Amino acid sequence: MRDVKVTPIKNGTVIDHITPGMALNVLKIIGIPDTGVQSTVSVLMHVPSRKVKWKDIVKVEDRELDKSQVDKIALIAPNATINIIRNYNVVEKHSVEPPKEVVGLVRCENPNCITNKPREPVRSRFSVTCRDPLKLKCHYCDRELGDIAKNLL
Amino acid sequence: MRDVKVTPIKNGTVIDHITPGMALNVLKIIGIPDTGVQSTVSVLMHVPSRKVKWKDIVKVEDRELDKSQVDKIALIAPNATINIIRNYNVVEKHSVEPPKEVVGLVRCENPNCITNKPREPVRSRFSVTCRDPLKLKCHYCDRELGDIAKNLL
Repeated sequence: MRDVKVTPIKNGTVIDHITPGMALNVLKIIGIPDTGVQSTVSVLMHVPSRKVKWKDIVKVEDRELDKSQVDKIALIAPNATINIIRNYNVVEKHSVEPPKEVVGLVRCENPNCITNKPREPVRSRFSVTCRDPLKLKCHYCDRELGDIAKNLL
Repeated sequence: MRDVKVTPIKNGTVIDHITPGMALNVLKIIGIPDTGVQSTVSVLMHVPSRKVKWKDIVKVEDRELDKSQVDKIALIAPNATINIIRNYNVVEKHSVEPPKEVVGLVRCENPNCITNKPREPVRSRFSVTCRDPLKLKCHYCDRELGDIAKNLL
């Protein structure tokens, strides 16, 4: 058992194959520590992976994610897999879906963009100009987004 | 083995009994992610503990901490224990030491304090007014520090 880095959890969610370096951003997306930590959360960074060279893993006990959280994870960790665990068994396993369009998940970096005007109720909207690595362009002002992780809403 | 949340590491440092909620601040103190993650790092938050009710744990493979990092951890996690692991064995185990005086580790919150003047080469210096919970008072301006974790240098 000495080499096993990933111990099983009884109930909850395992987010596996996270792009290395992105684990702390995934934590932010699922509201940690802002909304408080009521169940055990494990974060593994820079773990050797068979599929890719390195990966990060986040395990959250007794919690499942909502759609907007999964969609945001897809933006920063396009190879992530979401495993739902119940009574030590993986009852669901799916990959995150690369988006075709990104609506209401990230902020445009252009301060003058209409989506950043406090009085305008316009949701941000980006088209995907490159899928790997993911590149987004604002639907309204055409500005390409430099740093997706930093601009998550 | 199903209940074992803490898997052993071959070489490195295990920081155990961290005050719950402080794991991400301990990461910051040891320079993660700012200085990059070159070895596997595991973070466990809100883990049941026999000694106290809940604790956080941080494990860093292939790294040992320097004195200033250990001293900073003592400020935000006064019950932490530092375990140095070599070839799966704990070769050193010690508690962090509660400080008598805190020099050069935290910033005074008073913007007018002499320790915050860019031209004055004065290191911050605090006396300990309460040990549990830790409360610090600036040696120069007498201001009590409100949030230690936020003001770590």
